[in-house]
Amino acid sequence: MGVKGNAIVAQSGGMTAAINATLAGVYETAAGSADIGKVFGALHGIEGIINNNLVEMNLTADEVERLKTTPGGYLGSCRYKLPDPVSGKDVYDKILNTLKDNDIRYFFYIGGNDSMDTANKVSTYLREHGHEILAVGLPKTIDNDLPITDHTPGFGSAAKYIATTCSEIYLDVKSFDIPYVTIVEIMGRNAGWLTAAAALVRERYDSPDLIYLPEVPFDLEQFFVDLAKVREHKPAAIVVISEGIMTKEGQYFAELAGDLTSDNFGHKNLGGSASLLASHVKERLGCKVRAIEFSLLQRCAGHLVSATDINESFAIGKAGVSAALSGKSGIMMTYQCEREPVYKMTIGHCALSDVANIERKIPREWINKEGNFPTKECNDYIRPLIQGEIHPVTKNGVPDYLYLEK
Amino acid sequence: MGVKGNAIVAQSGGMTAAINATLAGVYETAAGSADIGKVFGALHGIEGIINNNLVEMNLTADEVERLKTTPGGYLGSCRYKLPDPVSGKDVYDKILNTLKDNDIRYFFYIGGNDSMDTANKVSTYLREHGHEILAVGLPKTIDNDLPITDHTPGFGSAAKYIATTCSEIYLDVKSFDIPYVTIVEIMGRNAGWLTAAAALVRERYDSPDLIYLPEVPFDLEQFFVDLAKVREHKPAAIVVISEGIMTKEGQYFAELAGDLTSDNFGHKNLGGSASLLASHVKERLGCKVRAIEFSLLQRCAGHLVSATDINESFAIGKAGVSAALSGKSGIMMTYQCEREPVYKMTIGHCALSDVANIERKIPREWINKEGNFPTKECNDYIRPLIQGEIHPVTKNGVPDYLYLEK
Repeated sequence: MGVKGNAIVAQSGGMTAAINATLAGVYETAAGSADIGKVFGALHGIEGIINNNLVEMNLTADEVERLKTTPGGYLGSCRYKLPDPVSGKDVYDKILNTLKDNDIRYFFYIGGNDSMDTANKVSTYLREHGHEILAVGLPKTIDNDLPITDHTPGFGSAAKYIATTCSEIYLDVKSFDIPYVTIVEIMGRNAGWLTAAAALVRERYDSPDLIYLPEVPFDLEQFFVDLAKVREHKPAAIVVISEGIMTKEGQYFAELAGDLTSDNFGHKNLGGSASLLASHVKERLGCKVRAIEFSLLQRCAGHLVSATDINESFAIGKAGVSAALSGKSGIMMTYQCEREPVYKMTIGHCALSDVANIERKIPREWINKEGNFPTKECNDYIRPLIQGEIHPVTKNGVPDYLYLEK
Repeated sequence: MGVKGNAIVAQSGGMTAAINATLAGVYETAAGSADIGKVFGALHGIEGIINNNLVEMNLTADEVERLKTTPGGYLGSCRYKLPDPVSGKDVYDKILNTLKDNDIRYFFYIGGNDSMDTANKVSTYLREHGHEILAVGLPKTIDNDLPITDHTPGFGSAAKYIATTCSEIYLDVKSFDIPYVTIVEIMGRNAGWLTAAAALVRERYDSPDLIYLPEVPFDLEQFFVDLAKVREHKPAAIVVISEGIMTKEGQYFAELAGDLTSDNFGHKNLGGSASLLASHVKERLGCKVRAIEFSLLQRCAGHLVSATDINESFAIGKAGVSAALSGKSGIMMTYQCEREPVYKMTIGHCALSDVANIERKIPREWINKEGNFPTKECNDYIRPLIQGEIHPVTKNGVPDYLYLEK
């Protein structure tokens, strides 16, 4: 309580359309605090701290507003895996030096699962080495796979993108009265939250027909049985799959096409599940087939964000700074939500160590018995998170996002 | 002049986000005319007329508004190729019967290149067989490859989607300070108009780096030379290609991966150029590579339309009906534009036969000498067409588009 010094904020892991809203929240509260002097941004996550590659942030109120819907990481991101504190002591000492040299007493790390692990390790090491610092983790991931928090900042906007785009694909595809199978592939390595957002489309349109999630083993033969049932009464079927659908042997379906590369955390680079499935459909049914991979678009569509998500992501950034200012450390901020009688979110927190490297998946009972569609309970959970629109300012017809020139 | 009877309207070919704006315009003027009784919609283009599969249209003012930004073909589309009038006499007689039986004196066909050919053939046959009908073609194609008209309805919205999305991809990709090549694939079989829209991004952001169009032969070795130059000063390169890039021998690049299927008009089904090019890059450079195909998304994004495009598409529908009401027939409505001192569009028309099956491409002088980027002249041509935003009404967070239940 009452610690005076500078603050540092960094962004890490895969991008979301709301990650800069959290940064904007951190900045606004930190810059407005009498206890915090300068607000530094570390460029490219923890790498910026290791390499003392910082910028001092000075944003106008208008820039803070524009930052809220700017996709990508304003400060840049990384996928750097921190070594073990013993074998990698030199790395931790570099971090310690950067923070000491810049008189940093507040450390805010915006990231996903792996990032909470990084924040946790740094926080522990610094405490053990006598540099008093208040470290707060701010969640972020379109995958919504963090435990404890009701949902993650960034998920609602990606889910809105998916629900909107799947509605539009339906209207395009249904224009043609021909045998036609469309397969849409959505991100989410081991958790199907994002893919499940496509089920919201069905509350308004007669689509999609089938949704396959990583939580239920994917069986190609059963898929063809399911698809045949759909095609009995409509010529054009739309199938939505997670990039991470797996066989019952636990192998990624995408892997059946060949070996996959991995990132620094050992996560396999997926993508290609839809085109592999499309080639099976083409071969077996011979009809028109189209594979559509949402790829980066679902996580960077600043023009199609959920207002709920942006406002909450901004609020959690502000709350994270307030918590640190009140002396809290080693925590990750969380959302605590009620959905009845109306949706209501309050911000809480948990220990960083409670969240590191734990993945939360969709409960099996939120997926139908056949394993090919989420249930109403799942929709009820996701629906409030995609509500509301915020449109970015445009200039010459293109969004006028705020970004840091190199 | 002064012909009384019913009207029919149909939609054909690939969809656009503005095709229903033209339908809304046709409907509004036709429904409001004292000379026109009922307004019929033919389901699935000319097939609906052949099979007498019609709906009578009765829309409220609110529905007309919602229809304007609804993607897909409200009435459905087709890719049916009309036979020769001699060998396919029975088909033409069915068309004649449908139009006679329903007392149709006004025929509006919203479509692309192939559709103008269809409208032209029908119009000629009917005239020769004594059923007086006023036939007006209304252009539509995201490809912008029709001659005579300054641009085509639907192009501006797709171009806006591309410029917006390419901006967002840039912000996502630049977050990572690693060697990284992103290849974006855009529709446009033989004309690069849509792909060229990505150049507008560069007026605001330092991206994309290279743009390859079907108008210039694509050489893989030269591509690697171009790419190496880009990568000298930035780690993450973004390359935008048309699905229809071709070798100097006139073969589609996509074809190098294997045989392509064709549609009823003999057009090859492209797509896959980016993933083929990505595999070359991966093999040769070994860095992180991502292929992104915009696929249907670029033509059905009703949530991201150009207000200019929607308003013009609506206006051309209205003007087409007015022209028919004044006795004109056998024509396609066109846009005639001035860009200096300010952009100004007026609606004109040309003979249907002048436009059928002619493709308009980007002039070579609107592409730089190296053949890897459009010039400022090309930007100046496209820029006015992506201006302005119209946001669809949403319901529960998802666009509340107007569509015809089957």
